[in-house]
This record gives sequence, structure tokens and C-alpha cells, in this order.
Amino acid sequence: MKEHFLFYAPPESYRYDNVQFPEEEAHHMFKVLRKRPGEMVQVTDGVGHRMDVRLDVVDKKKVTGEVIAKKETPPEPERILMMGVIRHRDRLEFAVEKATEFGATHIVLVHSDHAGKMTIKPSRIDKILISAIKQSRRFRLPKWEKRNSFFEVLSEYRENRKVIMAHPGDHGNQKWKPDDAPSLLMVGPEGGFSDKEVEQAVASGASLVRLGPTRLRTETAVCALMTLSACYGTAVCN
Amino acid sequence: MKEHFLFYAPPESYRYDNVQFPEEEAHHMFKVLRKRPGEMVQVTDGVGHRMDVRLDVVDKKKVTGEVIAKKETPPEPERILMMGVIRHRDRLEFAVEKATEFGATHIVLVHSDHAGKMTIKPSRIDKILISAIKQSRRFRLPKWEKRNSFFEVLSEYRENRKVIMAHPGDHGNQKWKPDDAPSLLMVGPEGGFSDKEVEQAVASGASLVRLGPTRLRTETAVCALMTLSACYGTAVCN
Repeated sequence: MKEHFLFYAPPESYRYDNVQFPEEEAHHMFKVLRKRPGEMVQVTDGVGHRMDVRLDVVDKKKVTGEVIAKKETPPEPERILMMGVIRHRDRLEFAVEKATEFGATHIVLVHSDHAGKMTIKPSRIDKILISAIKQSRRFRLPKWEKRNSFFEVLSEYRENRKVIMAHPGDHGNQKWKPDDAPSLLMVGPEGGFSDKEVEQAVASGASLVRLGPTRLRTETAVCALMTLSACYGTAVCN
Repeated sequence: MKEHFLFYAPPESYRYDNVQFPEEEAHHMFKVLRKRPGEMVQVTDGVGHRMDVRLDVVDKKKVTGEVIAKKETPPEPERILMMGVIRHRDRLEFAVEKATEFGATHIVLVHSDHAGKMTIKPSRIDKILISAIKQSRRFRLPKWEKRNSFFEVLSEYRENRKVIMAHPGDHGNQKWKPDDAPSLLMVGPEGGFSDKEVEQAVASGASLVRLGPTRLRTETAVCALMTLSACYGTAVCN
């Protein structure tokens, strides 16, 4: 079986060994990929399972199949990304997509001091997450939420986690060595975090890391921080 | 003087100490930022200079100023990004923007074996480069070119450079330790580099690096590879 496509059907799509695909996946299978009954496809439920499914009905109205094999995939290292909201919706959505491709397990969009107006379409974010896990062949859908208080999020998630804040400037410490430990990664909006937010983070044990010699946009900093935290498995970061 | 905005006027805009801004910059100054005669702005010519300019004429038709101070900025480490062309124009443009923000000094869009159709608008790419150096406060505009032969580009640019190819899979070497040395960084299109291209690269002394545990889109891999090569100045990569 080719492994090019991973399909998505959430947990509520299954009854015993039968699965009925959500409308969009069904459309993609029938119209775009022209799948036929009897073909095998690879499917995830977004909660950690990888399944081999034999297609049963494939028509304009619905696509169903039978789960032939089901495997639990290994857990992913926990990486919570807290990100200041930015005004440009396409850049915000891009950041969410990239964070997911890089392996974020939880994304918190926070209205921090310098954040832009919160104009988030939840259904868009849901779609982006699904598309990104399929693309990057992850089997677990990240959680996401929007929050109004930077401080609340920090207090809630800092315990038992490495707290890392991307912050430009020469603050010299940068003791962060990425590894598998649960972590809270923070990237500011346009204009960065406020002095008060930086102080609160540092007082909460955060390490400040500078992400290279140039000034980065929010979505670019998300890519950089996620890369650095994701690449612990490769030699380049050691 | 606030350092929020960096403006761009290419070398041909100057006569002695006087500068006439290109139409788009002039529009931005007059219409959006409502600059007045006498105000100071920071300007780059994209070939390494940072200038303080006192605005002279500011109207609908033109904006001119006088160069009060001019500094040569330090040279940037040479990083050539060779990237396989991808079909989605917005993703391609995004990759070019991000590569520039991360400090690429030269971008080569190459029609490699698995590349998509080459549908590049040169004027769009020029605009993206200008916008990205202003955004990231770089003072040198990257060069860019499109090429049809992967092998030609490899032969032409590999000499006296570290050659790094982003390539998924367990190839185990990953001896790359990013530093200031001139480098040629290669990222494949959708579908990656062909076996032949990987062989040619390795035969030319390339190191293969894996960019983390998940499968990355081309523009995502560009962000990751540029991050890793840019962050040599921070502790996280050492």
C-alpha cells in the first residue's frame, strides 16, 4: 500500500469495525482521488491510532469502509505553543499550520499586551489542524484554545514544564537544550511581549532565547522555535 | 529616532546626497505613515548601507530627502538556498519570504526532478525580497535566480562551501554543525529530491540532514533548515 495519503475520520465516525468518512474526506476520495470499493487506505482518528481501512461504499453521497488493522502509535513529546495573536489572519493561520507540522501538541492563541484584534474563525483553525496532521503524518490532533490572559495561561501551564520564551536582544542566558521534556514555548505577537510579560515569564522560571541574528515576524519565530524544539532528535542541535 | 521602519531606495535612487524614493515607498510614506518634510527616516539601499535621511519633499507625486549619515553595515555570512520549485505559488512565495527573513543571501529556485511547474513572477519575488529585508532589518537584498538544472547549480555553487541537503529518513550521518562558513543549503520540492539527485549531492560532498520527526512541506523545511543554519549564534544549536 502506498503511504502517500493519510485520511482523517474522528472517533465518532466509527461503529464497531465500520467507518463512515466525514463529508470533506469523502469528497476528496470520490471526486479527486477516484477511489474504488475494495481499495485500501490509511486512516487516523486523530487520537493516536493508525488504521488500514478497506473501502466499502464509495459514491457521491458517502464513503464507508471496514477497519482491517488498527495500531496505537507512540505518544508524542508534549509541546505547548503559546502564541500572541496577530492581526493578519493568513499569517496567524500559517503559524498554526506550521506549528502543527513541527509537532505542537497544544496551541494557545493568547491576547497578550501587544496582541492584535482576536479575529479567529474556529472552524478554519480546526480544518488547518486536520490538514496539517495529514500532511505531516501525525496521528494526534493538537488541542487549541484562545485565551485573553497571558498571565493565566502562564500560571496554568508552567508547572512541571520547561518554559521557553522567544525574545530578541542580548539577554545572554540561553541555557535551553531542547529535549523530550514537556515544554511551554512562547512567541509574542507583532511588537513582541511587553516588559511586564517578560518579567512575569522570567519570574516563573522561563528561559529567554534569541532566535538568530535577524528580526523575525511572529509566524517566522514560531517556525524557528518549533524547529529548535523539534530537532532534538537530530545531530544538528546537539 | 524610532527604529520601527526601515525604508528602501535602491542605489540608482541617489544623486550626491539626495534621494528620490521609489513610487511604492513614497506612497507608503505619504499616504499611510503621513510623513512630513523635515522628519528623519532610516533607509537602506539594499547593498549594505544604513542611512539617516531627512525628508525634503513629501507629496502625492514624489518623496525626496537628504542623506545626513551613511554607514556601511557588517557583511552577512553567505548562505545560498537552493530550493525545488513547488506548484503552489503562495507557498513558494512564503518560502522565499521566510528564507530572506532568516538571512539567505542568495536564493536559487531550481526545476529539480520532482519539481512542479515553474510559474514564477519575477516582479513578485523582487517585491517579497524588498519587503522581507525591511521587515527583518537586513541591509542587503538577497540575489535570486531560477534555474533548470539541479546538477548545474550544484556544480557551480558547491566549491568552497559546505553543502547541506535536507532529506528525510535515517541516513545517520548529520555531521553538520552550523557556523559562519559559506554554505549551500538544499531543500527539495514536494516529493523531495530524486534518488539520482541525492546521489549526486552526496558524491559532491553534501551532508544529508533530517529536519525532525515529522514530514515537512517544502516551505516548512526551508524554515527549519534556515533556522538551524541561522541560529549558530545562539546557545541552542551549540
